[in-house]
Amino acid sequence: MDFFFNPKGIAVIGATSNPSKGGYAILKNLMRGFNGGIYPVNPRYDRIEGMICYPSVHEVPDPIDLAIIFVPAPTVPALILECAERGIKGVIVESGGFAETGADGIELQEMLKQVACESGIRVWGPNCMGLVDAVRKYVFSFVSQVIWNERFIAGGVSLIVQSGMLSGVFLIDAMTHGTMDVSKVCSIGNKADVDECDILEYLVVDPDTKVVGLYLESIRNGRRFTDICRRSVKPIVLLKGGKSEKGAKAAMSHTASLAGNAAVVSGAMAQVGVLEAEDFKQMLDIARSLAMFPDLPAESRGRIAILTYSGGAGIVSSDFIAKTGLELAELSQETRDSMKTVFPDWMPVSNPVDLWPAVERNGAKRAYGQAIRAVCADSGVDAVFIHVFVGGFALNPDIADLAAVAKAAGKPVFCFLLGRREEALEFHTQAQSLGIAVFRELYRAVECINAVFMYKKIVERRKPDISHQPSLSLPQEWRKVIETKSGSLDEHLSKQILEACDIPAVEEQIVSSTEEARKTALNFGFPLVMKGLVPGEIHKTERNLVHLGIMSADAAEMNFELLKHTLPESGKILMQKQIQGPELIAGLIQDPQFGPCVMCGFGGILTEVIADVVFAAAPLSVSEALDMIGRLKAQKVLDGFRGSPPLDREALARILVRIGELGHACPQIREIDINPMIVHHGQPCAVDATIIL
Amino acid sequence: MDFFFNPKGIAVIGATSNPSKGGYAILKNLMRGFNGGIYPVNPRYDRIEGMICYPSVHEVPDPIDLAIIFVPAPTVPALILECAERGIKGVIVESGGFAETGADGIELQEMLKQVACESGIRVWGPNCMGLVDAVRKYVFSFVSQVIWNERFIAGGVSLIVQSGMLSGVFLIDAMTHGTMDVSKVCSIGNKADVDECDILEYLVVDPDTKVVGLYLESIRNGRRFTDICRRSVKPIVLLKGGKSEKGAKAAMSHTASLAGNAAVVSGAMAQVGVLEAEDFKQMLDIARSLAMFPDLPAESRGRIAILTYSGGAGIVSSDFIAKTGLELAELSQETRDSMKTVFPDWMPVSNPVDLWPAVERNGAKRAYGQAIRAVCADSGVDAVFIHVFVGGFALNPDIADLAAVAKAAGKPVFCFLLGRREEALEFHTQAQSLGIAVFRELYRAVECINAVFMYKKIVERRKPDISHQPSLSLPQEWRKVIETKSGSLDEHLSKQILEACDIPAVEEQIVSSTEEARKTALNFGFPLVMKGLVPGEIHKTERNLVHLGIMSADAAEMNFELLKHTLPESGKILMQKQIQGPELIAGLIQDPQFGPCVMCGFGGILTEVIADVVFAAAPLSVSEALDMIGRLKAQKVLDGFRGSPPLDREALARILVRIGELGHACPQIREIDINPMIVHHGQPCAVDATIIL
Repeated sequence: MDFFFNPKGIAVIGATSNPSKGGYAILKNLMRGFNGGIYPVNPRYDRIEGMICYPSVHEVPDPIDLAIIFVPAPTVPALILECAERGIKGVIVESGGFAETGADGIELQEMLKQVACESGIRVWGPNCMGLVDAVRKYVFSFVSQVIWNERFIAGGVSLIVQSGMLSGVFLIDAMTHGTMDVSKVCSIGNKADVDECDILEYLVVDPDTKVVGLYLESIRNGRRFTDICRRSVKPIVLLKGGKSEKGAKAAMSHTASLAGNAAVVSGAMAQVGVLEAEDFKQMLDIARSLAMFPDLPAESRGRIAILTYSGGAGIVSSDFIAKTGLELAELSQETRDSMKTVFPDWMPVSNPVDLWPAVERNGAKRAYGQAIRAVCADSGVDAVFIHVFVGGFALNPDIADLAAVAKAAGKPVFCFLLGRREEALEFHTQAQSLGIAVFRELYRAVECINAVFMYKKIVERRKPDISHQPSLSLPQEWRKVIETKSGSLDEHLSKQILEACDIPAVEEQIVSSTEEARKTALNFGFPLVMKGLVPGEIHKTERNLVHLGIMSADAAEMNFELLKHTLPESGKILMQKQIQGPELIAGLIQDPQFGPCVMCGFGGILTEVIADVVFAAAPLSVSEALDMIGRLKAQKVLDGFRGSPPLDREALARILVRIGELGHACPQIREIDINPMIVHHGQPCAVDATIIL
Repeated sequence: MDFFFNPKGIAVIGATSNPSKGGYAILKNLMRGFNGGIYPVNPRYDRIEGMICYPSVHEVPDPIDLAIIFVPAPTVPALILECAERGIKGVIVESGGFAETGADGIELQEMLKQVACESGIRVWGPNCMGLVDAVRKYVFSFVSQVIWNERFIAGGVSLIVQSGMLSGVFLIDAMTHGTMDVSKVCSIGNKADVDECDILEYLVVDPDTKVVGLYLESIRNGRRFTDICRRSVKPIVLLKGGKSEKGAKAAMSHTASLAGNAAVVSGAMAQVGVLEAEDFKQMLDIARSLAMFPDLPAESRGRIAILTYSGGAGIVSSDFIAKTGLELAELSQETRDSMKTVFPDWMPVSNPVDLWPAVERNGAKRAYGQAIRAVCADSGVDAVFIHVFVGGFALNPDIADLAAVAKAAGKPVFCFLLGRREEALEFHTQAQSLGIAVFRELYRAVECINAVFMYKKIVERRKPDISHQPSLSLPQEWRKVIETKSGSLDEHLSKQILEACDIPAVEEQIVSSTEEARKTALNFGFPLVMKGLVPGEIHKTERNLVHLGIMSADAAEMNFELLKHTLPESGKILMQKQIQGPELIAGLIQDPQFGPCVMCGFGGILTEVIADVVFAAAPLSVSEALDMIGRLKAQKVLDGFRGSPPLDREALARILVRIGELGHACPQIREIDINPMIVHHGQPCAVDATIIL
C-alpha cells in the first residue's frame, strides 16, 4: 500500500485548467505539497499550469506508481485498465457516479472491482476525497485549496473515513480552530477494492501514525478488521454510523453499504480493544488525546488532581470523574503543605484545588506553578486536569512552565480552556504544541482523560492467549448430525451436542412409558420438570408443553399421561431435574460481517427490561470470554445475590469459548440458543437449548 | 426585588480610583451602562473619576435604593446597617471573606443575615459577582472591563449561578465566541439572605427573561424552589453541582453549602418540569434553544427533517435522533417530488436529505432553498435540522432566505455548523439573530432539539390538579400512635396505619396459639407466610423469622411452634396470605432540602442491579405520581410481563399520593419503607412495611 501514501510519481487523469473543476484542484494541491513527479493526463490539453499534459498514461515518460482519476464515471474502468498496463500500482478514483447512484452505477463499480481483481492494480474509491497527509503536506484530493491558507497542524492521529465531510470540511474546520492534530486522512468512499482493512493494516505500522480514528458506515470484513485491531499496538477509535435502524437505512442509501448489528459491532470492538466514539469531533478529541499520551507510567491508574480557578468547575469536574473509571486523587499531606505556601491561611487545600484565593494573593503564574509542582511530585497523582481562562482577570498561567514540570514528572496534563476568542486560540495552539491536551468543554475533557486511562487498562488486560487456538474435538457422530439435519434440533438433541462440547447441561432423560417416568422420577429426585418435545416446535412454554414443579412419582406419572395425550405421534417426553438460580442466556449467531459471534447475557426479567447481553466474535479466548462477562451491566448479581453462591466465571467463560468453537467449526450452525442457562450452586448449566441449522 | 435589577440610584461603597481594585471596576462598569444616579462612597476620596465621592451613604443627597459593597469583610455588617438606616432597600455584597473562609467568616456572614432580618434590607451575596443585565447593559459587578470590548448579544436566557466562573469568565468566553444570548446573569455567592428562590421568583415574571438557567451547588429551600418552578410558565434548566459524593465534598468546601441527594433533586425537578443539564455550556445551549422557540404549534411532536451536505453527518444525526424522544420525519410524496427538481435523477430523496448531489447540480443556495421550502410545507415535519459548512466548497446557503421560509411556516430550524473560523463566527451570529439555533457539535444540536420538544411535552402533561389539596383524614387513634411512639413500628402496626390511609396491605393476622394458627390457616387458604415480629427488629429475613410457602394447616401449627420457640417474650407471630407478582418498593424519606419525599421503584433483583427508583416531593398529585411511575426505567415490566396482568397504574399512583400525604401530615414520620409491595393481579399490595418515627 506504500505507493498510495508515498508514490514516486503521480498521474492526474482528468487534470484540467478550469479552476472550478476537481481535476484542477487535485493538480494544484499536488503542486503545493507533493515533492515527486506530477503528470497531468488529459487528451484535451498540451500544457496545464506550465506542465506538459499527456494524452494518456502510456505517454508519461517517467516512473509513476499512482494515478488519481477525476473523470466521468463511465470512462473510469477503461482508464484503470490503461493504468494497469502502464505498470501503475494504484489508482485513487475520486469521481462519483458509481454504486451510490443506483443500478447503472453499481454495474460500473463492479467493473472497477473486476479490473482490480484481474490486473492486480489496487483501486481506492470511487466517490471519495482521497488522501491528505498533514505531515508530508501531501494532498491527493480535490479538497478546496483554502486549506493551504490554514494551519497544517501535523499530529499523530490518522483517520480512515467513509464520509467526504470528515476529510473535507471537517478538516478545514479543525485546521482553522487549531484542533487538527492529524497525520493522514484517508477518505475511502465506496470501497470498490481498497477498504478500511487495507488502510488500517498500513496505518497500524506507519511511523507517523500514533492512533487511528475511523468513521465507518459498514465494516466489510469484520473478521479481518478485528484481527488487525487485535494485533495493533496503537489505539484505535471507531465511530460507527448507522447504529439505529433509521441510521442504517440512511447508510444504505448513502454509500450502499451494509450497516452491521450495533450490539455485535460493539461487542467485537470491545473484544479487540477498540474504543468507540459517538460523535465526529468527540472521535477526533479522544484520538488526539490518546496520541498525546501513549506511554503512561506502569503504576498509573487514573487518579486525577484538579487545579481550577473556579470552585464550581471543580465540583462539576468531580461529578464527571465519579461517573467514569477515574478517581479524584487523594493529595498527600506533603502536597497539601507545599500548596499551602501560596494560599491564605483560612483556605483548606483539597482536591479539586480551588486556586482562586492563591491567584488573588500571589498571581496566577505563582499559584498554578506551585500547585502543579506539588501535584506532579505526589505519587498518588496520575494526571493533572487544569482549568484555565485567558484574556482577562490576570488568570493566565505560565503554560510553558506547567508543561515542563509535568513533562519532567511524566504526568499528562489536560486543560479545560475558556477565554477571549483570540487569546484562547493562541493558548490552545501553544498548549497543544507543548504536549497539553486542550478542551473547550468540561465533560469532553473528562471523557478524553478517561479514554487515555481506559486504553491503558485495555492494554494491561491483554493476555498472551490472544492468538488462541480452538481445541474442540466434536465426535464424528454429532458432526454428522449437524451436517445432515436441517432446521431446529430438539432440546434434547441440542443439549447432547452441547455436552459433547463440554458444555454442562441439566440431567435429563427421554421417557416412553408411565413406568419409566416413575422410575426416572425416583431416580432424579424432586422437584422435576417434564416437557413435551415436538419436532420443529421451539415455543414449548406457549404451547403448554412445559410442566414445572413436579414433586412426586405419582405426579410424574400423571404428567406423563397428560403430555402423552397432548403430543402428536412424533412427540417425545423429556424429564429433567428442576434446578434453581440466576437465569442467563448464551448462544451463537452468524453475523454477515463478523461471522459466528457468541452471545451471553441475563435471562428472565433482566433481559426484557435492560437487554443486558454482550457479543464477541468467535473463536474467542478464555480471557476474551471473561472480558465479555465483565461487560454485562448487571454482572454484580453474578457475584452472589441474596445468598446464592457466586458464579464460577471461569466455568461460564469456558462455555462461551466452547460455543464459539462449535460455531466456528460448524458453519452449518446458524444459531445456538441456550435459554435459560441456570447458575446452580455457582455452576452454569444449560436447561433448555436449541441448535438451528 | 426590582430595586436590585432596576434601581433608581446606586451607591458604590468601597469605590476607589485604584484601577486594580474591584471597587474601581464596579464604578467604571456602572458608568458605562447604568443610566441612573451613581454615588461613589469612600471616606478616603473627595472625587473619583470626576464624580463626588461621599464619606458615607448618609451624605448622598439623591434617592438611592441599591448599594454595591466591595470592602473588607469585617467592615461590611456596619455598612449594611448604615444603608438600612439611609432607607436603601438592597445591597449587593461582592467582597469575599465570609463563610467560605472558615469559622470567623461564618460568624461575619451570620451578622449579615441578622442585619437583613432585623432591618428588612435585602442582602445579595456576599462573595459574589453581582449582576450583569445584557439587555439594559447594566453591569453591577467587578467583572473585568474587557467585556465592554465584546459583543453584548442580548438574549432571552437569564442565569442564576452559584459560581463566579459562570458570571465572569464564562460570560466573556460566550460573548467573544458569539454564543452569549443572555438577559440577566445573577451571581448569588454565599446566599446570606437573597437566595436562588428570591431571584427565580423575580425572573419567572421578568419580561426580558424567556428561560431561566441555574447552576446551583445547593438548594436552600427545596419546597419553595419547587413551588416556584411548578408555577413558572417559562422553562427552567438546572445544572446541579455536587451530585457525586466527591462532588458534594468539593461543594462543601467551596460555598459551605449542603448538596442534596442527587436522586431526590432529580426527582423533584422532574416532578415540577425542570430540565436538568450536566455541563456548563450544555446548560446554556439548552436554555438558549428553549428561549428561541417558546411557541411550537400544538400538533408539533418532534418529527425532524434533516438537510445535510454530508451523508455521514445525516446518518450519525439519525443515530442520535433514535436515542431521544424525537423521530425522523417521514417525508410526504409531495415533499420528495418537490425536492426531486434540484436532484439528479438517480438520487432517491429520503430523510435525511443528502443535498450534496443537488448542490453540485444547482448550487447551495438553490438546493437548500428548495429543500427547506419542501420540508417546511410538509405537515409531517415539525422541525428542520440543517447542516452547514461556510468558508469554501461553495456550500453556503442563503441563511436569510432559509430563516424567512421557516419563520413563515412556524417551524424551528437548528443548525450544525462547521466552517472556517471567521466565516463560522459571522454565520453563527447572523443565523442566531435570524432565529436559527446554531451548534458546533452534532450531538449537542440533537440534545437541544430534544429539549425543546421535551419541554413542550412537559407543558402538555401538566394537569389542572397541580395545586392538589391533600385529602387524607387519618383516624385519631393512629395519629396518636404516631405522636406517642418512637423508633420503628412493627410490620403489622405499620400496615394497619397504611391501611387506614387507604394503602392496600396483604391479608394478615396476629396469632397467639396453635389453634388460632390452624384456624387462620384454613381461613386464609394456602400458600401462607408466617413471620416472627420482635420489637425494634427490622431484619426479619436475616434472623430467619420469615417462613414462606406454608401449604397446610399442620405445617402452620408446626411453624407456630417453631417461631414461638425462637421468639423472645415480647415477640408476636403474624400470619399472611402469600401472594405473587412483580416486586416493587415504595416509601417516604425526609430530605433536608425538600422535606418529605415519596419514593417508588422496583424491588428484588432490579433494585440491586439497576437501582430503578424515583423520587418526588410530597404532597404530590395523582398525575405527578403517574409521572413518577413513568420515569421508572423498567416500567414496561409493569405492563404485563410473562403473562402477568398489567399493573393498575392509577392504583399505584393513589398509593404514592397517600404515602406523600401521610408524610406531609405527620412530620414525626422519618421514614416509610414498603418492601416488598407486590403487584398481585395488577393491584399493588403492601406485603412488608416499616414506619420509622
